[in-house]
Amino acid sequence: MDWRQNIREVEPYVPGEQPNQSDMVKLNTNENPYPPSPKVAEALAGLDPDTLRLYPDPLVTDLIDALADFYHVKPSQVFAGVGSDDVLAMSFLTFFNNPDKKPVLFPEISYSFYDVWADCFHIPYQRVKLKDDFSIDPDSFLQPNGGIIFPNPNAPTGLALPVDTIEGIVKANPDSVVIVDEAYVDFGTESALRLLPKYENLLIVQTFSKSRSLAGMRLGYAIGNEALIQCLKNVRNSFNSYTMNRPAILAGTAAVKDRAYFDRTRNMIMETREQAKEELTKLGFTFPDSKTNFIFASHRSVPAKKIFNELRERHIYVRYFDKSGIDNYLRITIGTPVQMEKLYRALREILAE
Amino acid sequence: MDWRQNIREVEPYVPGEQPNQSDMVKLNTNENPYPPSPKVAEALAGLDPDTLRLYPDPLVTDLIDALADFYHVKPSQVFAGVGSDDVLAMSFLTFFNNPDKKPVLFPEISYSFYDVWADCFHIPYQRVKLKDDFSIDPDSFLQPNGGIIFPNPNAPTGLALPVDTIEGIVKANPDSVVIVDEAYVDFGTESALRLLPKYENLLIVQTFSKSRSLAGMRLGYAIGNEALIQCLKNVRNSFNSYTMNRPAILAGTAAVKDRAYFDRTRNMIMETREQAKEELTKLGFTFPDSKTNFIFASHRSVPAKKIFNELRERHIYVRYFDKSGIDNYLRITIGTPVQMEKLYRALREILAE
Repeated sequence: MDWRQNIREVEPYVPGEQPNQSDMVKLNTNENPYPPSPKVAEALAGLDPDTLRLYPDPLVTDLIDALADFYHVKPSQVFAGVGSDDVLAMSFLTFFNNPDKKPVLFPEISYSFYDVWADCFHIPYQRVKLKDDFSIDPDSFLQPNGGIIFPNPNAPTGLALPVDTIEGIVKANPDSVVIVDEAYVDFGTESALRLLPKYENLLIVQTFSKSRSLAGMRLGYAIGNEALIQCLKNVRNSFNSYTMNRPAILAGTAAVKDRAYFDRTRNMIMETREQAKEELTKLGFTFPDSKTNFIFASHRSVPAKKIFNELRERHIYVRYFDKSGIDNYLRITIGTPVQMEKLYRALREILAE
Repeated sequence: MDWRQNIREVEPYVPGEQPNQSDMVKLNTNENPYPPSPKVAEALAGLDPDTLRLYPDPLVTDLIDALADFYHVKPSQVFAGVGSDDVLAMSFLTFFNNPDKKPVLFPEISYSFYDVWADCFHIPYQRVKLKDDFSIDPDSFLQPNGGIIFPNPNAPTGLALPVDTIEGIVKANPDSVVIVDEAYVDFGTESALRLLPKYENLLIVQTFSKSRSLAGMRLGYAIGNEALIQCLKNVRNSFNSYTMNRPAILAGTAAVKDRAYFDRTRNMIMETREQAKEELTKLGFTFPDSKTNFIFASHRSVPAKKIFNELRERHIYVRYFDKSGIDNYLRITIGTPVQMEKLYRALREILAE
C-alpha cells in the first residue's frame, strides 16, 4: 500500500505531433493556414503589460458580449473556455452525471477525446455505429442514454448532418443533454443554433482554433439556454474561477468582431478544399465529401501508412490514425494553395514509385 | 424527469470581487502591487501574432525548463497549469481518488476552494481544527485519510509552519499524497522543496499570481517526484492537452528568468508588510504574524464588517469573509507604500468616528 492506491488511472488523449521545422508543410492538426485577423495583433499591441499583475475579468464580459452579439443570443447563453477541449471537458463533468449510470452515446468513429473524458470522469459510454458510408445514423441515438455528443461535421470523416436530422435527435432525447460539437461548422455546414429557442437540452460547442486562426490562444465556447449555461458556469467556478487570461480575452474579442476577415479566410479555405477534392481524385484517392478544413482520404492502391511516412520524410505532415476501421485513411488539413501544391507534387512522386 | 436529473450539483467558489475604478485602492485579492518584470513586456512584444494560428507547445517546454532551472529540479518534476487553481483542481482529480473513500484532510480555516473541489469531484473530506492561535496542528493529520492538503503559509491567517514540521506530516502519511500549497511562500517562508528527494508522496504547488505579478496571465505549477508529476500530466492530458496558451508560456518563462526583479519586488512587499504590522498595531488591530503578502487583522473594538464597508465607501477594497470563526477579520493585501498610507489615513478616520 502506498500513495499510488489513490491515483486516478487514465489513458490520456494523444494529441497530434507538433513538429517545428522552418521548411515544413504542416497539415496534421487542422490549424488554419492564415494568420488571425489583423485586429487581433492590434488588440494585443494595446495590452498594457502592467495590468497583468491583476486578475482578469472572471466574467469574461467583453468576449461573451462579442460572441452573443455575433450569434444573436443573450450573453447569459454563452460560456467561454480554454479551447473547446476545456469547454467539452467541463460539459462532460456537468451534464453527463446521470445517477442511473446510463451510457453516454457518441459515434464509434469520432473525436477521440470523447472516450478519454468519459473514462477520466468514470462516465459509462457506448459508441454507436456509423452507416457504411461513414455518416452518422440518427436512429442510433434512439436508445436509453445519459447524454449524447457528436461533432457536426463529424471528425475525422468530415461529413455533416442536416439541422433537421439533428432536431430529430434532440427532440427524441428530452431527458439528456445533447452536445453538438461544431468545431468545423464554419467551413460550410449549417449550425444547429436555430434550434436553441425550441430545445433547452441542446448545447452547441465551437472553437477559435480552426475558423478563427487562434489555436495558440486556446479559446472555445458553448451556446445554449440560460439554465444549461448557468450549470456549466457553476461547475467551471468549482474548478477554476479564472480560466481565461487577459491576452486570450482581448484576442478572442477582436477576432469575433472582425466578421469580414473571418468570412474571407474561411471562404478561401473552402475554395482550396474543393480544388483539393479534384486533385486528390485525380491522384486516385477516395474520401467522404468533407464540409471541414480537412479531407479524410484513402488511396485506392497505396496504403495510407506508407504515404504518411513518405510525406513525413519530405517534411509534409498529415495525420494518420493507427486505429481499426480508419487505418487506411489520411486526414489532410487544408493549407494555403502553395502548401497544397507542395503536397500534390509530393504525392505524385510517392504514388509514381 | 428531464435533462436536469443528470446535472452535477455544485456550490461554486465565489472569488473576491474585481472592482475596476480608476481611483480605487485594491487590497482585496492578494495581487502584487508592482507590475511584472520588464522582461515579461519584452517577451510579449516579441510574440508574432501570426504564430497564434498554431497550437502552442503541449509540453510547455520553455516554461518547464525555466522553472526546473530556477528550483534545481529535473524538468520531469515540474507541471504547469492555468493558475495554481487549475493545478490544484487537477491534483484533487488525480491524487484524491482513493477507493475506500477515506476523507481528504485540510484545515478548517484555509483556502476556501478546497471543499469546493472535493464536493465537485465527490471526494469525502474532513476539516481539521486549528490551534487556538490559528496555527495548523500537525497532529491533526495523524488519522486515516485519503490525502492531505494545506497552504503554507496558511490563508487567510498568514501563519507558516517550519519545514521540519511539514516533514513530520509527510513522513507519517506514506499512503497519501500530501499537497503543500505554497501560493505565498515567497514572502518569507522556507519552501518544502528540500524534502522532495526524501519523500515521493509530496507535491508542492506554487503560483505566478502573487510573487511574480502575473495574476492576469493565469500561471501556476507543481513540483514533485517524476512519478507523481507523470500522473498529473496524464490526467491533464485526459482533460485538455493544451491548457497553456502562447502568451502565457512566453510571459511565464521571462518572469522566472528574472530572479533579480523577483527578489527586489518581494523584498519591497515584505518591508511594507512589516511597516504595516506597526501601523495596524498602533491603530488597535491584532493579527497573526503574517509571512504572506496580506495581513489577517481584527480590531479590538470596531467590527470588521463595519470597517470593511466604510473602506469600501472610500473605494478602498479589502477582503471580508462572512464565515463563522473569522467574521471579525479583514484580509488586507499589502500594496505599495502609497496605497498603504491611503489605507492608514482612511482607517484613522473610520476608527475616530
